[in-house]
Amino acid sequence: MKLKLIATVATCGLLVGTSLAVAQAPSSAGAGLPPPGAGGFGGANTRLQILPDNRVTFSISAPQATAVSVSVQDEPEISRSVTFTKNDAGVWTGTTTAPLPVRLYRYNYRVDGAVVADQANVDYSLSNSGLQAMFEIKGADTAFMSFKNVPHGDVHEVFYRSAPLGGILRQLHVYTPPGYEKGGATKYPVLYLLHGAGGDDDSWSTIGRANWILDNLIAEGKVKPMIVVMPAGHIVASPGENAPPAPPPPPTVSTPGLPGNIPGMGGGPPGGAALNDVDLYSKDLRGAVMPLVKANYRVLEGPANTAIVGLSMGAGQTFNNAFYHPEDFGYVGLLSNAINNRVAIEADAAKLATAKKNFRFVYLGIGDKDGSYPAFQSLRAYFDSKGFTTAQQVVPDGRHSWDVWQKNLADVAPKLFR
Amino acid sequence: MKLKLIATVATCGLLVGTSLAVAQAPSSAGAGLPPPGAGGFGGANTRLQILPDNRVTFSISAPQATAVSVSVQDEPEISRSVTFTKNDAGVWTGTTTAPLPVRLYRYNYRVDGAVVADQANVDYSLSNSGLQAMFEIKGADTAFMSFKNVPHGDVHEVFYRSAPLGGILRQLHVYTPPGYEKGGATKYPVLYLLHGAGGDDDSWSTIGRANWILDNLIAEGKVKPMIVVMPAGHIVASPGENAPPAPPPPPTVSTPGLPGNIPGMGGGPPGGAALNDVDLYSKDLRGAVMPLVKANYRVLEGPANTAIVGLSMGAGQTFNNAFYHPEDFGYVGLLSNAINNRVAIEADAAKLATAKKNFRFVYLGIGDKDGSYPAFQSLRAYFDSKGFTTAQQVVPDGRHSWDVWQKNLADVAPKLFR
Repeated sequence: MKLKLIATVATCGLLVGTSLAVAQAPSSAGAGLPPPGAGGFGGANTRLQILPDNRVTFSISAPQATAVSVSVQDEPEISRSVTFTKNDAGVWTGTTTAPLPVRLYRYNYRVDGAVVADQANVDYSLSNSGLQAMFEIKGADTAFMSFKNVPHGDVHEVFYRSAPLGGILRQLHVYTPPGYEKGGATKYPVLYLLHGAGGDDDSWSTIGRANWILDNLIAEGKVKPMIVVMPAGHIVASPGENAPPAPPPPPTVSTPGLPGNIPGMGGGPPGGAALNDVDLYSKDLRGAVMPLVKANYRVLEGPANTAIVGLSMGAGQTFNNAFYHPEDFGYVGLLSNAINNRVAIEADAAKLATAKKNFRFVYLGIGDKDGSYPAFQSLRAYFDSKGFTTAQQVVPDGRHSWDVWQKNLADVAPKLFR
Repeated sequence: MKLKLIATVATCGLLVGTSLAVAQAPSSAGAGLPPPGAGGFGGANTRLQILPDNRVTFSISAPQATAVSVSVQDEPEISRSVTFTKNDAGVWTGTTTAPLPVRLYRYNYRVDGAVVADQANVDYSLSNSGLQAMFEIKGADTAFMSFKNVPHGDVHEVFYRSAPLGGILRQLHVYTPPGYEKGGATKYPVLYLLHGAGGDDDSWSTIGRANWILDNLIAEGKVKPMIVVMPAGHIVASPGENAPPAPPPPPTVSTPGLPGNIPGMGGGPPGGAALNDVDLYSKDLRGAVMPLVKANYRVLEGPANTAIVGLSMGAGQTFNNAFYHPEDFGYVGLLSNAINNRVAIEADAAKLATAKKNFRFVYLGIGDKDGSYPAFQSLRAYFDSKGFTTAQQVVPDGRHSWDVWQKNLADVAPKLFR
């Protein structure tokens, strides 16, 4: 999670004396920025203000720019509603034309065609293509995922070299529940929680708010304390790896019967691995991530203590890992899933029998405005026809976006490990 | 730490079908970017390439821009050496005129006056004024802080409401050593490690590489496994706090004898609290951070098991917390310290006696090109004159920058808790 300190008073970063000048921050354009409001972030070069009526004012210093706009993710109308004007100090400012709905948002700026992250609002969230900052319009609909006065778990940043991927350096995030760090011998069940094509391993603990959602539900006694593992779903190396020890292995051959390879499903390079038992993502998950988790954390093992839930691309990865390896999982959650990989289910009668025995349920989460909604309906019917127990949450007016997946997580988590 | 996945193949983020289009990443200008090189990061809108001779090429898509430059922190000559030219696709590219010295760097772009973080190199590090990405020119001089094939500790992101600061939401980072997460009853000594005026609580585990430095030294048996607490040193709230529960308390009165209040020393609002026993930073550290650490982690207590080390502004905070509360600490480290707050030492003979009894040493780290070097020399003489045991590391050609503090940490850590 990237929530961080910000400078609510622009001058609080002043340095003492000339001897420290080499550490001086980038020059401030704060003089031209509006003062921080009651709902405002501070900072030197940008400012975001949430007005009392939930309109939002964006400001960015760009003295030589000719075109400035804001891009609020999944919100093209809101983005278009903000018109920026430049003041004499070179600061561009624009305000949404209407109050924004209660929700957690991600955004960045466009300055003369460049994609620009907010420098002052350091409540960052990474996507597969870069960085966005977040802001929250608070209300009853976000209370379940707000930071409350309850015991809190930790989010860990963990690095590892993935032997199945040729030794490249990768990262995952791990949530441990309140009290875990005091030690002892208590072991916990594990939820593997997978992001989508646009995300990375930080997504569930930033824009997804998985940690605070679980903190709140655990405090209410509604969720069993659990470890949540949030792996990286794209098969790429971390930065800082100027010379990886070895290139990743070539994509494996597709499972016969699958309709070709599917780019972007985490299977590896474009045109590479498919949704099969041995795609690169599964090799990393099963060959590196799961062993790391079992070796380093106090985890209960076996299907009754192991859940896997993923969204969109991560739902496809969940589908495959669960149905090719039903001996490992007891709970399966597919959020905004577009793919029904029947091969995984139908190719092996023994695996199908194991899945039906082990899976307490297959959970399906979706928004009713999601383009995958028809796929959800047919998938639900398919699982029913195969004799699986299903559970579902359809979010009204829900799109293919994080406000749906936040609600799905809060809905499915209480059902796990019961 | 912000090291994250990046897209080394620009197309690996492709989404499947139109139903997922709402989650589409910002439009890519990848077609106009140079291909990733052997040392290159990938990504849609920017690209950083480390050439075989350690020159570095920076590329950023900004089709409508008229002026693009790069700012490499602490390296004005390197920054000036990069001249950008725009190609027909609107991508600006520039290369350093000379190979860069082996070191970990931070940088961002300037596009028509706006400060722009690299969107593709998501190896981010926060400073007090915003975000920079990092890259490493690897060599013998960075080996001590590289990710090696050794057991690794975790870096935790921890949120808390600071009661001494009126309940504002704040964050800290905590390093737990390899094996800690397996639990048990073993307790560990604690190092409180404080950042400088330009940093925040993520600095020591990003640009400071504290976690990998310690992993490597622990693996060599040179450092005692310890918990490292990296608090936030500026007295500001986290973002996402549209309406903090209450404003922070007013700054306290300065200690008599101090030469007035010193802005930027973490004491609170400009013109506010001074370097004294009850400044706002100390209230947070002693009233919120230290109790949180003792309550939630398996820590050995008492001065023999508690160290405090800080750099620059954080050295001032370390100075005060150690000498006003010598009953709590056994090891004190001042890196690139500019201030000698004699009042803290000389005002109370009993405290001075406790300090001389408890402090195994006062460690002084500095670069010989740091503007604070004269202050270091007089401080060293002062501590000697007062009868303290001192230890020191002077880094040749070292400036007021992170390459010095990384070396200082690797030098002082083996001396702690012995």
